[in-house]
Amino acid sequence: MSEIIHTESLTADAFASFGDVLAATGAPDKLINAGRCGRFHDRAQLDFADGQAGISIFQSETVTLPYDCPLMERHPLGSQAFIPMSADPFLVIVAADRDGTPDAPRAFVTAPGQGINLHRGVWHGVLTPLGGLGLFAVVDRIGEGANLEEYTFDTPFRVVQAD
Amino acid sequence: MSEIIHTESLTADAFASFGDVLAATGAPDKLINAGRCGRFHDRAQLDFADGQAGISIFQSETVTLPYDCPLMERHPLGSQAFIPMSADPFLVIVAADRDGTPDAPRAFVTAPGQGINLHRGVWHGVLTPLGGLGLFAVVDRIGEGANLEEYTFDTPFRVVQAD
Repeated sequence: MSEIIHTESLTADAFASFGDVLAATGAPDKLINAGRCGRFHDRAQLDFADGQAGISIFQSETVTLPYDCPLMERHPLGSQAFIPMSADPFLVIVAADRDGTPDAPRAFVTAPGQGINLHRGVWHGVLTPLGGLGLFAVVDRIGEGANLEEYTFDTPFRVVQAD
Repeated sequence: MSEIIHTESLTADAFASFGDVLAATGAPDKLINAGRCGRFHDRAQLDFADGQAGISIFQSETVTLPYDCPLMERHPLGSQAFIPMSADPFLVIVAADRDGTPDAPRAFVTAPGQGINLHRGVWHGVLTPLGGLGLFAVVDRIGEGANLEEYTFDTPFRVVQAD
């Protein structure tokens, strides 16, 4: 694993193997409210082994770049969506899986108006808002059972701002 | 019905008969991420007759006060949550039901960091952001069937800023 990774802009294509970008991109699927509002319909692959979807609020401390990432986690029983409640960017660290451990991490920075939905079981860093309120609505699985796996790196990798 | 109603601040108590306020209020239910993040757990009463929860993005034009409200709507088959993706306020018009029509409307103005979840079947106005991006994540029922009832007033009522 590289010890330093550079941030990338969050795009649906680049993020496709990790999750969904939740944003008003392209043409709306439907115009509602007498044309005053566009509905971009059903943009997250919600996927729960059991239990049900719920909405929670996360209030997180913010971080700054460079950021040393000490661990990643994943939720084997369900997808997890993060919807920022301010227009401030947040850092989205994700990784592929290799034999049960995170591999080849990447770090995306959101633009205003972007949320994400992590697909079930995808390795990700903890919530790392880059400023603002640090406030998110989270849509994830509400249910019993062990839905958290963590992996701590021997040495944290460093996320630095791309040039 | 009054022809003019005054805005109210959105509080959980005042809104309880209409829905849930989604905000980081009180003590978090759980501290996560080594104490860096508070989780306010499962704060919305999601309630779907059938189908399933989904996340859509709404991009709406903004409005200004005073606002003339021409119609209200309700969704008999499911709850509907509105999570603002900016820290700008939005207007939440709701009403009780009397014999199948909206009665005694009220108009709440959100504070930064507040979203709402309308309970299933509650009469409400269309999305009326008071500024900013006009961008919301909406968690509602994804499914077939007639899930929209509308009621048009003979004369719109006017929502004015409280003194």
